[in-house]
Amino acid sequence: MKTDFGPKTTGLPTPIVVIGSYDDKDRPNAMTAAWAGICASFPPCIMVCINENHQTAANIRHSNEFTVHVPGSDQVAATDYYGIASGKTEDKIASAGHTISPATHVHAPIINEFPIVMECRVYSRLQIGPGMVLIGEIINLAVDKTCLKPTENGQETIDFAKIAPFAFNQADRTYNAIAAPIAGAWNAGLGLKKS
Amino acid sequence: MKTDFGPKTTGLPTPIVVIGSYDDKDRPNAMTAAWAGICASFPPCIMVCINENHQTAANIRHSNEFTVHVPGSDQVAATDYYGIASGKTEDKIASAGHTISPATHVHAPIINEFPIVMECRVYSRLQIGPGMVLIGEIINLAVDKTCLKPTENGQETIDFAKIAPFAFNQADRTYNAIAAPIAGAWNAGLGLKKS
Repeated sequence: MKTDFGPKTTGLPTPIVVIGSYDDKDRPNAMTAAWAGICASFPPCIMVCINENHQTAANIRHSNEFTVHVPGSDQVAATDYYGIASGKTEDKIASAGHTISPATHVHAPIINEFPIVMECRVYSRLQIGPGMVLIGEIINLAVDKTCLKPTENGQETIDFAKIAPFAFNQADRTYNAIAAPIAGAWNAGLGLKKS
Repeated sequence: MKTDFGPKTTGLPTPIVVIGSYDDKDRPNAMTAAWAGICASFPPCIMVCINENHQTAANIRHSNEFTVHVPGSDQVAATDYYGIASGKTEDKIASAGHTISPATHVHAPIINEFPIVMECRVYSRLQIGPGMVLIGEIINLAVDKTCLKPTENGQETIDFAKIAPFAFNQADRTYNAIAAPIAGAWNAGLGLKKS
């Protein structure tokens, strides 16, 4: 038996990302978002939802480009801070003790201390109430060299165990660890397959 | 120093959901999706991306309504199966050993064995290559009574520790546990705030 809660967003632990952008004077800003997710493969795109009253919304309307960082658990305090302070009233990046590099592929700041960054260009946008749903084409994915591991075919891939990313749990108002694998994808269900 | 990977979707662990829908003869189907995320608060909406060649894409074009289930770790094999078998060639819900109830608020099936379900109506859609980005308004969130816990103000909320939801790790092709809280949201960064 299930209990109805009505129209609520509480039901899905969501990823935590930090969005980087420049304002019209090329001053960098950062904000935390939990309404985000990969949304296409060809071309690779990511969806982020930004309330229209944020400085970041104005910045991206101006520049049309932005960065999406995936923080590790060692940056949880700074990540939370980027969600509760406003770039309209304080220099958030300085207060967080972070440093910036210009992105190589888009006009947006990279926060060096975060292990993963996606450099994005606005592909499409949709207004839903006060929220701007941005779809950004991922022009480049860049990952700290210290957070990589070799693959079987001699390439390198992301070592999420070293990064320890986390998700937002709206029910408890907490950040929850994304931890060890529990099963293989395209594998765990093979025994149920008929054909 | 960071390593560039080019335009890739590998960088963000994403939620795992199972989408339920009816075809034009009201036969239920289910498919697993990892390109998904809450995308608006007013009204509450969720984004899911479905490749156009899936039976689910045709079903939702017909019905305009669907369900989004959040599986727990005890359903990882069935969840994976829903991602590797096709509703065009087998009765996936029967093969998974699952049972169906009609959703109360929309015309779509609820898979009883999953602990959380969002009943959704198509709010908007966008085509990106072969992927249909669906934005669904969440009409109702329903949660198994056994997966709830009391809040301080005498209400009930979701107990994710009982559900043990998981995320997709594309780098390793695994499902990874969403585990215990590491910090409080709107709290962990208060010490960095100036105003």
